Amino acid sequence: MASTKEPDSSRRSDRSRRAIHDAALALVGERGYRRTTIEAIAARAGVGKQTIYRWWPSKAAVLMEAFLDLAARSAEEAGPQAGGEHGIPDTGDLAADLKRVLRATVDELNDPALEGPTRALTAEGVVDAKLGAEFVEKLLDPQLALYVTRLRAAQEAGQLRADADPRIALELLVAPLTHRWLLRTLPLTHAYADAIVDLALGGLTSRP
Amino acid sequence: MASTKEPDSSRRSDRSRRAIHDAALALVGERGYRRTTIEAIAARAGVGKQTIYRWWPSKAAVLMEAFLDLAARSAEEAGPQAGGEHGIPDTGDLAADLKRVLRATVDELNDPALEGPTRALTAEGVVDAKLGAEFVEKLLDPQLALYVTRLRAAQEAGQLRADADPRIALELLVAPLTHRWLLRTLPLTHAYADAIVDLALGGLTSRP
Repeated sequence: MASTKEPDSSRRSDRSRRAIHDAALALVGERGYRRTTIEAIAARAGVGKQTIYRWWPSKAAVLMEAFLDLAARSAEEAGPQAGGEHGIPDTGDLAADLKRVLRATVDELNDPALEGPTRALTAEGVVDAKLGAEFVEKLLDPQLALYVTRLRAAQEAGQLRADADPRIALELLVAPLTHRWLLRTLPLTHAYADAIVDLALGGLTSRP
Repeated sequence: MASTKEPDSSRRSDRSRRAIHDAALALVGERGYRRTTIEAIAARAGVGKQTIYRWWPSKAAVLMEAFLDLAARSAEEAGPQAGGEHGIPDTGDLAADLKRVLRATVDELNDPALEGPTRALTAEGVVDAKLGAEFVEKLLDPQLALYVTRLRAAQEAGQLRADADPRIALELLVAPLTHRWLLRTLPLTHAYADAIVDLALGGLTSRP
């Protein structure tokens, strides 16, 4: 009767994975990356630590997957409007589309559930080059690729400067939000996201 | 004979301070912020730990001063051309002035002597809000104020959009460099600094 048992076992396995993800995120938010151990994650998730060792090769791998899962859940909740699962919307109005996705980013960065673990993982990547590279490859680059796609479409539509490299152009939009959030220089608001889009698209130079 | 003794004692005190700064920077680069202790700084600097306790209220205060000292030395070496002691140059050519100062920033961020301790202090500020706020107030804000001054002068000269807030405009210039450096997404080069200035001033929007 394996065929009727499997869905149950797969559901149990999904529940365990989710519990492990949540435990890993909570612990890293509370203690920081280095002081979070596989043992503590297992205890918090109510599973044996052998379960974690069987499914993941390292603590970094558990956390990376926990973040991917969290980002996927967050994108699902935000819906396609926020650019979640379907990339950045393309309504033909570049400024409006960028404001929508940057406002959603502001909301995500200000989400208290995400803040602790995201700060802990980012800080660790700042000092640990190997973890930082994994973080960029698995979590950041896929997000940045969505901007490249949208900006390239704008370029093809004649809305973006032909000589602008979309991979660099996106940094004018994304980096200011990250900078404010990481360094806590000033409040990170929707108005700020809008101002960044307006200044980046229009340029700082005065025109006649 | 106090008047002839004081210069000697003051020179000794300067030497001790510099030794303490250097020890603090080296240790935080090697071990990270949290694992750097006053005791270890004193031992490395060859002073008694009471000397440190007498001069500074906390480990954070020692490090903050060490960074201010390091930044001052680095600015001195770079000379006034790099915008060191005299703020951002104002030759009347805004793009050229910004490229000069952002290229100097690229060199500073790529300086191996600064990298370890700067990463360690920044990472700690990312997870420790109190230290982060001190870092921003004492180290970052004074640097950003130089951009505000230069951008405001450009605005008065009719070169910067009248509706641009200089405090926000500067983030389009500074944040992309910090973003690349902190997250190690792609190489941080002079060509990148130039591209950021050109895109930020000219804007991403295609113009007829």
